[in-house]
Amino acid sequence: METLRLYDFLPSGNGYKIRLLLTQMGMPFERIEINILKGETRTPEFLSKNPNGKIPVLEVASGKYLAESNAILVYLSEYTEFLPYDRFLRAQVLQWLFFEQYSHEPFIATSRFLTSILGKAKEYHVEIEQKRELGYAALKVMENHLISRTFFVNERYTIADIALFAYTHVADEGGFNLAKFPAIQAWIERVKAQPSYISITQDKSANITI
Amino acid sequence: METLRLYDFLPSGNGYKIRLLLTQMGMPFERIEINILKGETRTPEFLSKNPNGKIPVLEVASGKYLAESNAILVYLSEYTEFLPYDRFLRAQVLQWLFFEQYSHEPFIATSRFLTSILGKAKEYHVEIEQKRELGYAALKVMENHLISRTFFVNERYTIADIALFAYTHVADEGGFNLAKFPAIQAWIERVKAQPSYISITQDKSANITI
Repeated sequence: METLRLYDFLPSGNGYKIRLLLTQMGMPFERIEINILKGETRTPEFLSKNPNGKIPVLEVASGKYLAESNAILVYLSEYTEFLPYDRFLRAQVLQWLFFEQYSHEPFIATSRFLTSILGKAKEYHVEIEQKRELGYAALKVMENHLISRTFFVNERYTIADIALFAYTHVADEGGFNLAKFPAIQAWIERVKAQPSYISITQDKSANITI
Repeated sequence: METLRLYDFLPSGNGYKIRLLLTQMGMPFERIEINILKGETRTPEFLSKNPNGKIPVLEVASGKYLAESNAILVYLSEYTEFLPYDRFLRAQVLQWLFFEQYSHEPFIATSRFLTSILGKAKEYHVEIEQKRELGYAALKVMENHLISRTFFVNERYTIADIALFAYTHVADEGGFNLAKFPAIQAWIERVKAQPSYISITQDKSANITI
């Protein structure tokens, strides 16, 4: 295999993180659409790539698979401008990546999934309501951090920004109102102004069907 | 400041990860007990260290704070035997760290917290029941991986094992039965046999009160 191959689902913010970084790094990749709504992450073939049954999965070499969007971000960005070399700064980036997966994604991304991807906001209104407070708590932590900063770590655009941007900029699709978070809004505009930015459903890969 | 300072809560598995690694690395550290049950992670003073209001927090130098247990593990273990140097192996360790925080901890650790730390299993039986299936799904992924392996990555004891061990070996305190997971049980014994192993409430630090 000569090109990186990404197993992905186009509406997914976790998949978008990888698409955005690869595009901004100028790295060519093949993209294979896995429709999670049709159970395509539950087939024996997919589970042999990621036993945890989730996209994105990056095939970094023939038969070598890597799962977990934020682990893939670190893998791809090492020794590039998207990840600081300094040990403490790099640890701060990791801190935000774990914050995103533990305190942000389970509330904000999941609300968007139920509301705008599944389209079942009414059916899941109890679950969505439970996620509201914790999602806003995560946004508040981000807002307070960004009030005095341009980006999350070291005043530079890094994979910490990519990871947090993925679901924050579409938080409205999960029913979150960003009106009270002006620092987040300004940061969203700064991310969108980065070179080679692509939107969440924009796809510049070589799509293939296998 | 000359010694690393850990803001910690002794029953916490996330805090234990750091205590265990530091002890096994032979690094001296001070430990400051923060009683999360008494709201001590919600004081303005603690929030100035971690705005997300969670332990553990490591003060790596005077006024330089690092949060998120798994980010701290990576920070401490870089260039040591506990984290592989090879880029893909290191990414596999990260993959398991993110798996632990997203697919394991929110179900297994939280069930233990409600049951054995808060002691409110009856009051929270609905929440605990909801976490049961996803917790067992995570254990199944681990069991299948460990059937043919001694440790999670590269047949070596790494921070991936430390991160997953912290809450797995006390999963029974959250109502999970490990009887059907013989590979996990054998791995637990291998981790306990590692040099300088300490148990979850064992504390070899210099405890201080500030």
